[in-house]
Amino acid sequence: SADYRLPPDVYEKWYGKSHSDKENLKKAVYGLPELYRKKIKGAELVANPGCYPTGIILGIAPLLKDAAIEPAGIIADSKSGITGAGRKASLDLLFAEISDNAKAYKVGSHQHGPEINQELSKLAGKNVDTLFVPHVIPTKRGIISTVYMKQKKKMTQKEVDRLYGDFYKNEPFVRFLGSEAMPELKDVVLTNFCDIGVKVANDMIVAVSAIDNLTKGAAGQAVQNMNIMYGFNEKKAL
Amino acid sequence: SADYRLPPDVYEKWYGKSHSDKENLKKAVYGLPELYRKKIKGAELVANPGCYPTGIILGIAPLLKDAAIEPAGIIADSKSGITGAGRKASLDLLFAEISDNAKAYKVGSHQHGPEINQELSKLAGKNVDTLFVPHVIPTKRGIISTVYMKQKKKMTQKEVDRLYGDFYKNEPFVRFLGSEAMPELKDVVLTNFCDIGVKVANDMIVAVSAIDNLTKGAAGQAVQNMNIMYGFNEKKAL
Amino acid sequence: SADYRLPPDVYEKWYGKSHSDKENLKKAVYGLPELYRKKIKGAELVANPGCYPTGIILGIAPLLKDAAIEPAGIIADSKSGITGAGRKASLDLLFAEISDNAKAYKVGSHQHGPEINQELSKLAGKNVDTLFVPHVIPTKRGIISTVYMKQKKKMTQKEVDRLYGDFYKNEPFVRFLGSEAMPELKDVVLTNFCDIGVKVANDMIVAVSAIDNLTKGAAGQAVQNMNIMYGFNEKKAL
Amino acid sequence: SADYRLPPDVYEKWYGKSHSDKENLKKAVYGLPELYRKKIKGAELVANPGCYPTGIILGIAPLLKDAAIEPAGIIADSKSGITGAGRKASLDLLFAEISDNAKAYKVGSHQHGPEINQELSKLAGKNVDTLFVPHVIPTKRGIISTVYMKQKKKMTQKEVDRLYGDFYKNEPFVRFLGSEAMPELKDVVLTNFCDIGVKVANDMIVAVSAIDNLTKGAAGQAVQNMNIMYGFNEKKAL
Repeated sequence: SADYRLPPDVYEKWYGKSHSDKENLKKAVYGLPELYRKKIKGAELVANPGCYPTGIILGIAPLLKDAAIEPAGIIADSKSGITGAGRKASLDLLFAEISDNAKAYKVGSHQHGPEINQELSKLAGKNVDTLFVPHVIPTKRGIISTVYMKQKKKMTQKEVDRLYGDFYKNEPFVRFLGSEAMPELKDVVLTNFCDIGVKVANDMIVAVSAIDNLTKGAAGQAVQNMNIMYGFNEKKAL
Repeated sequence: SADYRLPPDVYEKWYGKSHSDKENLKKAVYGLPELYRKKIKGAELVANPGCYPTGIILGIAPLLKDAAIEPAGIIADSKSGITGAGRKASLDLLFAEISDNAKAYKVGSHQHGPEINQELSKLAGKNVDTLFVPHVIPTKRGIISTVYMKQKKKMTQKEVDRLYGDFYKNEPFVRFLGSEAMPELKDVVLTNFCDIGVKVANDMIVAVSAIDNLTKGAAGQAVQNMNIMYGFNEKKAL
Repeated sequence: SADYRLPPDVYEKWYGKSHSDKENLKKAVYGLPELYRKKIKGAELVANPGCYPTGIILGIAPLLKDAAIEPAGIIADSKSGITGAGRKASLDLLFAEISDNAKAYKVGSHQHGPEINQELSKLAGKNVDTLFVPHVIPTKRGIISTVYMKQKKKMTQKEVDRLYGDFYKNEPFVRFLGSEAMPELKDVVLTNFCDIGVKVANDMIVAVSAIDNLTKGAAGQAVQNMNIMYGFNEKKAL
Repeated sequence: SADYRLPPDVYEKWYGKSHSDKENLKKAVYGLPELYRKKIKGAELVANPGCYPTGIILGIAPLLKDAAIEPAGIIADSKSGITGAGRKASLDLLFAEISDNAKAYKVGSHQHGPEINQELSKLAGKNVDTLFVPHVIPTKRGIISTVYMKQKKKMTQKEVDRLYGDFYKNEPFVRFLGSEAMPELKDVVLTNFCDIGVKVANDMIVAVSAIDNLTKGAAGQAVQNMNIMYGFNEKKAL
């Protein structure tokens, strides 16, 4: 859950209740191994990231950390399978409502927005305010996030490819596809992989990431974090 | 088809063959009734718009025509059902490939890009270069287009709502939903409607449009154009 | 609903409550126009048939009425879209439960069983006890019913085709396909048609019927009955 | 493939070509471990069963081997996901054709019919001629087979449950569910399990089996057979 991901005031604003364990919250490490593996190794408490933030941050990190893009004006357009909404008896989640349907929701106001911005701000070293628009599509599992970023100075496709390739070259659960192939949900569903493709388009860069919201976006990443914390092989049971 | 939508040079570049009827091409009117109803009424030849351009242009037109947004930096992120790819025996279109899957394709390089830009440039009175990224989702019919635009000067949600409301108030096939409801595919599939929702988000405006690619995005709009050309009731048979 | 389809004792047994309008129940006519059009015309009260019984009875009627099959040992295996279960907030009906899934339920004990048997018994002039097994498949609408019947004396495919063809030749909402084509859900969904195919297989006959459970299996048939009762064109608004 | 499952004359009749390896065909063992484990262990050549026959035979075997049902008049009604048709570029297999659709095909004339009858005849010790009707439903993987059998002498549900329970008690890949739960595709997809439920209904018995056509119905069962032939743990890699 989101319990240890945000500072108490942000948590209270977005989740509608005051935080009940502020003491431990201070010790929590944000559990995205690709950015914080060392800290996770030594952590007492790890906050497992949200599903949308996982795919979006991994799509942006190589460029933002390298200061190759403007921190302002980033747009994240996500398409999520229906299990992202949890398993509850609700008319909105019925087969007859979701099948053959698709829609945007919580445009610019989803509770994962502040989590995305908090982590991107840490990477950029300054305040980042991303516009995040989630959509529901008729699949059971998986999220495709398409991220739009403005280049700081003109880069070639090759330079961008090298940047992502280097950033993720030792990562066991990120597969960088370059610019020729774009990720597909079917290649990540039921796995802990995050697949990423990237394309330079004039002065913009488009990154597309795909994860399974229930593995890399939830329980799988939690296991990955546990493996790191306890010194197990990071891929164990994944 | 796209035969009379673009000037010969642009057509040749994107469709890979020289135009074979340049004489008539000059007389063709772009068949988007919400923008060119009068011209369509007097036209000899109407070029029926592409499916993606229809939903995207209708989502942008009220703001761009009013000069309320920057013509630069517009982003259109579309999610299309599989019939957008036509009906042909292809592995890419199999149930077993599409079901539970989703992906981006032709990022920034889809042949509908120049058609979108041509029409938006006419509206803006200057060159517009939109970044267009289409996606395939597992539905039979329908396109959700999410458009990201930068405000020229700060507008309130109310002002934006009024602008769209006024622009489409007499349109029989556009339903403006305001900011509270976002369009859903299931409400437009098998109809000739384009549903539009819009949301102000800081200095940006997000518009979401939904159409059925086979009716408002193809044959339905062709019938609408025919009705206008022949002086029939515009809604006849729709 | 099932309120006027069954005698009070059978109703009470299968629907778990005593019938509250026994007086009017006596006047009710079973609203399957293909069998009872004349009675419906003069009826004060018409009981609109259940979705499963509609498709199953229409698949069996020509042979049973002609005494060409054994009344004993009929088997009806139905495959229904999920809206057959109604629209309610239930875990069983979630997209994530139904998508990519299928199952049998209420094997030999569905509440439509007695309704099917009552009507088939009337046709046969003796007690008929069909084995009815419904299944759920991942479609929104529609029922395919496959019916297995034992021939009384050996018939050719041609004879069987002629029997069905004659029986339904003046029916506006039954399309008999013969033995070469089997009905598909996509041809009846959103229509009031019942499509039927039939195949002789040794000493058995297999009939397959397809309807949309929400039109011919519910509201559409109710409109058809109303049209008959009020002397309107039977196809009006259908 | 079906190459070593049938005698040369039957093979030629149903697969439309003469058998090209009649010598080895004589040595082939039918690879259904639940019936022929011992023979498979010593076999030089194992013919891996078809997807439909696997689920159907496993649903019938305990009763037929015990002579508890009539060998005549067995009906098998199967519902298969679309990968059962193989992966080829065909209009019939398109998402837009299969989604929201369902149909019967090859009624009483599918090429798996003789394979089913051959194996059931061996079990019964006499000629068995099952009526087999396959259907396509809109799932990617999996087959639900509903089998209708006539009891020889009246049995109770308890007796039938005990028979199936005993027959499969040591089987690693058959899960007998009894009469209370019916198998669902979602519980077997991506596994090598065959789930079976059974229900007594008057003088009939209905058995429902579920398998994944690509694992227990194909490659998974082949691995299971290989494990048995080479003396590996039967569950290895499954």
